Amino acid sequence: MNIKEKSVEELEALCGDIREEILRVVSKNGGHLSSTLGATELIIAMHKVFDSKKDPFIFDVSHQAYAHKLVTGRWEAFDSLRTFGGLSGYTKPSESDDDYFVAGHSSTSISLGVGAAKAIALKNEQDERVPVVMIGDGSMTAGMVYEALNELGDRKYPMVIILNDNEMSIAKPIGAMSRMLSSAMASPFYQRFKKHTENFVDNFGDGARYIAKRMEESLKLVTPGIMFEEMGIDYIGPVDGHNLSQLIDIFQTAKKLKKPVIIHAQTLKGKGYEIAEGQEEKWHGVGPFDISSGNSAKKSSAKSATQIYTEALMDLADKDEKVVGVTAAMPSGTGLTPLMEKYPERFWDVAIAEQHAVTSASALAKEGFKPFCTIYSTFLQRAYDQVIHDTCLMDLPVVFTLDRAGIVGEDGETHQGAFDISYLRAIPNMTLLAPRDEKSFHQAMGFAHQYQHPCSIRYPRGAFIASEELPESQPFELAKSQLLQASEGDILFIGYGNGVGRAAQTAKLLEKNVALLDLRFVKPLDEVMLKNLASKHKKWFIFSDSAKMGGVGSAISEFLTKEFISDVQVVSFEYEDKFITHGNTKLVEESLGLLPEQLVKKVQELS
Amino acid sequence: MNIKEKSVEELEALCGDIREEILRVVSKNGGHLSSTLGATELIIAMHKVFDSKKDPFIFDVSHQAYAHKLVTGRWEAFDSLRTFGGLSGYTKPSESDDDYFVAGHSSTSISLGVGAAKAIALKNEQDERVPVVMIGDGSMTAGMVYEALNELGDRKYPMVIILNDNEMSIAKPIGAMSRMLSSAMASPFYQRFKKHTENFVDNFGDGARYIAKRMEESLKLVTPGIMFEEMGIDYIGPVDGHNLSQLIDIFQTAKKLKKPVIIHAQTLKGKGYEIAEGQEEKWHGVGPFDISSGNSAKKSSAKSATQIYTEALMDLADKDEKVVGVTAAMPSGTGLTPLMEKYPERFWDVAIAEQHAVTSASALAKEGFKPFCTIYSTFLQRAYDQVIHDTCLMDLPVVFTLDRAGIVGEDGETHQGAFDISYLRAIPNMTLLAPRDEKSFHQAMGFAHQYQHPCSIRYPRGAFIASEELPESQPFELAKSQLLQASEGDILFIGYGNGVGRAAQTAKLLEKNVALLDLRFVKPLDEVMLKNLASKHKKWFIFSDSAKMGGVGSAISEFLTKEFISDVQVVSFEYEDKFITHGNTKLVEESLGLLPEQLVKKVQELS
Repeated sequence: MNIKEKSVEELEALCGDIREEILRVVSKNGGHLSSTLGATELIIAMHKVFDSKKDPFIFDVSHQAYAHKLVTGRWEAFDSLRTFGGLSGYTKPSESDDDYFVAGHSSTSISLGVGAAKAIALKNEQDERVPVVMIGDGSMTAGMVYEALNELGDRKYPMVIILNDNEMSIAKPIGAMSRMLSSAMASPFYQRFKKHTENFVDNFGDGARYIAKRMEESLKLVTPGIMFEEMGIDYIGPVDGHNLSQLIDIFQTAKKLKKPVIIHAQTLKGKGYEIAEGQEEKWHGVGPFDISSGNSAKKSSAKSATQIYTEALMDLADKDEKVVGVTAAMPSGTGLTPLMEKYPERFWDVAIAEQHAVTSASALAKEGFKPFCTIYSTFLQRAYDQVIHDTCLMDLPVVFTLDRAGIVGEDGETHQGAFDISYLRAIPNMTLLAPRDEKSFHQAMGFAHQYQHPCSIRYPRGAFIASEELPESQPFELAKSQLLQASEGDILFIGYGNGVGRAAQTAKLLEKNVALLDLRFVKPLDEVMLKNLASKHKKWFIFSDSAKMGGVGSAISEFLTKEFISDVQVVSFEYEDKFITHGNTKLVEESLGLLPEQLVKKVQELS
Repeated sequence: MNIKEKSVEELEALCGDIREEILRVVSKNGGHLSSTLGATELIIAMHKVFDSKKDPFIFDVSHQAYAHKLVTGRWEAFDSLRTFGGLSGYTKPSESDDDYFVAGHSSTSISLGVGAAKAIALKNEQDERVPVVMIGDGSMTAGMVYEALNELGDRKYPMVIILNDNEMSIAKPIGAMSRMLSSAMASPFYQRFKKHTENFVDNFGDGARYIAKRMEESLKLVTPGIMFEEMGIDYIGPVDGHNLSQLIDIFQTAKKLKKPVIIHAQTLKGKGYEIAEGQEEKWHGVGPFDISSGNSAKKSSAKSATQIYTEALMDLADKDEKVVGVTAAMPSGTGLTPLMEKYPERFWDVAIAEQHAVTSASALAKEGFKPFCTIYSTFLQRAYDQVIHDTCLMDLPVVFTLDRAGIVGEDGETHQGAFDISYLRAIPNMTLLAPRDEKSFHQAMGFAHQYQHPCSIRYPRGAFIASEELPESQPFELAKSQLLQASEGDILFIGYGNGVGRAAQTAKLLEKNVALLDLRFVKPLDEVMLKNLASKHKKWFIFSDSAKMGGVGSAISEFLTKEFISDVQVVSFEYEDKFITHGNTKLVEESLGLLPEQLVKKVQELS
């Protein structure tokens, strides 16, 4: 699609077509709706002025880039958005060389832009290429944005940063940055300056008042961008992010500047789909829905793990006023909204700022509170050092509740909760546990609540795999597993978390009686039970929704090695050493050979 | 020591005594000298105005807190600073309840302060307690500072932040923040405002000029703190950080404000020890030295791994202009200074900003460059998500050169390079290798240089353990180990990195012939060799300077498990699951039972 040759009017019409196509496909497949609708004109203007074949187009988080996909040869394929084998919901260089980087975690874009700018400078390509970064206001809170701006302002590499400000990020905007963007007049600096000048002016009559007024106005012009200007980055704005003709002009100006410039564009989230316009979190990421009513196409009947988490947390919060909750800009996704509503003084949304979430939670724990630091498995990676250095080294009772552990479905490779066991298990003082169903989740939370050391609880996206026929979960005790099913045979299934349901379903399909253990703690292990079982069962199969390297099977192997138990054969059904693609969770699991009907065959082959 | 009852004159004398004691002990034991000398008056003023028994005293990185140790009951013990079993070089609650948190990594302090402030608010203790944070200008570049300020400015918790600005951080100051602090006049905002106003004033003659001048002055007053004011945090400064009487007054004012306030104090690094005054990196962390001359007390004769790294990198940089280097504020510590000097355009010190270091390096790799991202093992924890999401998911050829892998000696528990294998091995597309001596380091670098995927090379602080009698290292090939010594016996020693020397020394002490393998790659493993050796040797001992959980032994156990090799017994001599204390490396290793003369006994017992 040659955007460069189209008139502004044609491009405006194209924006309409794009919105219609996005709405059609997202209402069918689910996806990120409101941010991508809001960014349509910005993206078209980017393509009019810049060239994604040579200029690095860098989309922060990249869930707002659907329009970019549509105009870079992916209109036909767009129907497959987020489906297994189809287009990714994020930018992906393997789909198109118009995509510069994979991005699914927020706030990496300016760093990538700085890296690209360094390369462009070294290659003497500054006359031909410039990095063009699009970042939402919500992403501006993460520290790495500031790290990148700090270097950029110093080095002055040419770069165009489009700040897509829809005044909401995923949830409510938090912090100084959002306040600054939303209102120049409220700026504390501006207010202080105004007060200072008024004192002088009062003594000098009307002429002085006029001058002061003019100076004040000149100050207003620069105020919204004052922080960027202070950092050495030119600021243009705020501009209307839906005025295509104006955007094109401004982008052309910015391109000519040959230095770092931030264009502050104000957009309306959900623009063009009335039901979603201006809505906050609800229309950010959605499942399939009916376009005319905005109603969700289907409701899941089973209770999600997140819902259970909320109930368990609220029970604890009701009973104990030391229970507090921390989220990094995802109160709804993590299930903390009820806590926010009922106990607002014990709830902190710290914005997209996982590092700060963990370290500030550690201080809360030091002060005698019981923080439930609720972060998706994949996002806790952002705060790894803080978990080690601020929580575990101090041996503080922070509870890390890791939602989205395991395959997360349509979001795909950037979001899979595969690594948390591997990266957390090696940290001294850390305890790792996982529930398998509703009851055990409440019990795990009860354990965590009274436990006086760091611990982490992982649970899946959506509902737990059903395991109704199993014996009831017993209360959690440190390093105690629960033997759900004994057997005289050689086979032992060890399940961890959602893996218990998978093991149970596999066992049901197997025409043999097997022993079934709910491991519960992958650290510390239930060594007594494992030794006992090692004397009875010689073929162990591990079920866990986690990376195999450093995962549950690895912990079990380490244990057997340490104990010199050599006559037990262990096979782990965890994830192989590859990034895992997006799509319906069942299809993805099938591609990995992890469905019970596939696993049962492997068990039969191996036993 | 009751500082509250002393006069300013007495406290000034005390500062002299403190400096003398610090100089005496650090010249003998080594330690952080210049920052701690510079912070003496600030710390004494803190104790005069606040109370470390109830107000959380939070020292960022905390290597500047020696004066705090001296005045909180540790004068007698100070002689043992940084020695095994003695006082830590950092704050440590287990030493004294005047220490609020352990800190050894930078930039956590404001987050901790915000967490403490939340707790104080919840407990209604705001009339009695206030967090007092001391942070250096160098620490201000890390993103988590900004994450914390962003929330603090919004929530307005009372907090006193003392910004100890010695205008140098560890090395050269980088970025907008340091420029802003060092000169209000150079502020881009100020410059732009000045230009704007001059235009008006020219048309209005002398009266207007006078008003404008006054307004400009009032603006100057606020300008250095403009970013903080913008974030909703009161700013006082700059003030003389060595004027005790003034500091006490200002701290008292700040205490009364009952809102977040930053006091910008300018100090002289090394204050009171003329040889070190105003010096940059050299006097930051030092070994024992002669006070009168400033000369180092002893020179290590063996070449350090860092020196070998520098030589190998410079060789590659000379040959290939695509080779670039990245450091997070440690050009000298990481050995990148020669690169900076010879090829400044291919060298980036991005300030303390590991996240940005990794992500921007990933973009450099995408553009065809070969970045050597040189970060201590313990500090790469800060960029874990970026290694996964920006380097490995994109499968880009960034080389992570991890200095300080293993026991780091006197810095101790916050700095031990224990976890890198555990946290990196689980990442798809990542390759992990390690050299054992000078020659193999050059070869490992040669391998990394031509390798087209992410890889990481780990090496110890100081010199490699000597292993002269071993066969020469052969060039590195992916997933190929080197068998250094064959044997007909049952025992196989597997060494990784510096563990090879440890294995060789242990083997020498053992009165048996053992096979000795230099593993070289812990990912991917040399499966062919390992299978072959499994058929010959049934007792394997693993030597590696890394955490046992998820470490080399774990990788070997995983492998044997996967291959159903059950008749091999594996014992790993890696670190047990505990944080490891500070002290002379040999003493620390002895306490862990890792000296060859200790290991040989364990081998004898087990074989």
